[in-house]
Amino acid sequence: MLKYQKIAMDLEDYIEDNSLVRGDKLPILDDLMKEFEVSKSTITKALEILEVKGTIYQVRGSGIFVRGHRRKGYINLLSNQGFRQSLREFKVTSDLLELAVINPTKEAAHNLSIEMDEEVYYVKRLRKIQGQPLCVEESYFKKSVVAYLNEQIVSESIFKYLSEGLNLKIGFSDLFFHVGKLKKEEAEYLDLKENDPGLYKETIFHLANGEAFDFSKIIYNYEQSQFYIQANNYLP
Amino acid sequence: MLKYQKIAMDLEDYIEDNSLVRGDKLPILDDLMKEFEVSKSTITKALEILEVKGTIYQVRGSGIFVRGHRRKGYINLLSNQGFRQSLREFKVTSDLLELAVINPTKEAAHNLSIEMDEEVYYVKRLRKIQGQPLCVEESYFKKSVVAYLNEQIVSESIFKYLSEGLNLKIGFSDLFFHVGKLKKEEAEYLDLKENDPGLYKETIFHLANGEAFDFSKIIYNYEQSQFYIQANNYLP
Repeated sequence: MLKYQKIAMDLEDYIEDNSLVRGDKLPILDDLMKEFEVSKSTITKALEILEVKGTIYQVRGSGIFVRGHRRKGYINLLSNQGFRQSLREFKVTSDLLELAVINPTKEAAHNLSIEMDEEVYYVKRLRKIQGQPLCVEESYFKKSVVAYLNEQIVSESIFKYLSEGLNLKIGFSDLFFHVGKLKKEEAEYLDLKENDPGLYKETIFHLANGEAFDFSKIIYNYEQSQFYIQANNYLP
Repeated sequence: MLKYQKIAMDLEDYIEDNSLVRGDKLPILDDLMKEFEVSKSTITKALEILEVKGTIYQVRGSGIFVRGHRRKGYINLLSNQGFRQSLREFKVTSDLLELAVINPTKEAAHNLSIEMDEEVYYVKRLRKIQGQPLCVEESYFKKSVVAYLNEQIVSESIFKYLSEGLNLKIGFSDLFFHVGKLKKEEAEYLDLKENDPGLYKETIFHLANGEAFDFSKIIYNYEQSQFYIQANNYLP
């Protein structure tokens, strides 16, 4: 982790520890530099990250303010930190349904830009919130990037293992989603009825060098899930 | 519009005009500076915007690449430019259902942080794609910020009027959504059946100074809508 990324996380803790809410003003730059014992360029970069992330907003000539408009129980769609961060007030667990090395489905091969005879790790998990089914997730990891997974790793945070264990640099992701009616098998996993509503999400995760390495399909239980996004408008 | 924002848009046109697709490399910085006749700091800022927006990605020591993973017919959830940009291959129209100055609902007052006796413009529109109902939208604009609206303005692009006509600086927005079953009246607008799935989205739009000025509620027709987000991962 780079210095300014660390400081960005420390700043988030600072906001939480001081119970700062929407519209609250942060200390001025000089004071933040002293508080965190870093240079002006480091604190500026950290603040830029938090602005993009939607944690703060800066008003020219006026100061730096807390945005923090999180609603409890809402999942941050743009966060890569999994559900644990968004849903930290709740008990989130995973049931492992399947873990295997396979050849990809046609859809997975297409989205990962690989041939159908290349190997992938296939992981199917049922996520639960307070014991209730939250979503079913199927993931396809390119084995050429993620050479090894086991039951314990996939029961915990896979992304933590990827970044800390394998030292992979995660880059960007493309999300696609739509709403539809659940098929019978999907409904059974989620404790719902056939034709009940479902949110279907596909994500393609890329390394910082642009290589797609994980294709993930999630179906959310509409009774247990709500989402939020903190967006910035960069273009007029 | 600031110079670098203009150049960012020109760069998007350049990518489109040259039919560049995912993984294609852009010219090096020096050549881009010459091509667009701007300074290094302007082109760098323009590229930063496009990186945040998900149009490009930069690989250190390797170059600048096109991300462009848009799927046709998908709505960009993070775009402020309305549907016209995302759905430019399709004919998108609006039926105006209601335009009135009213006192806000309790929900709208709460989300706009105003009193219930303050006036708002209420706009209800049915959006159509190729003649089919795409979504029903209800918007509440603070009258203290948006002093005047008429039928012609709300039949066209309200946000274009706000930024170009009223010269408002749009800042950031908070999006919340969930999936549910349509009520009878909602289903009728969308040509669907009661209890069919619906995507319910709420957005709070803010000015650059942090003031909330527009609270919008949209219900999407699940048969006509799909969404995408190009995300960046700034924090580990």
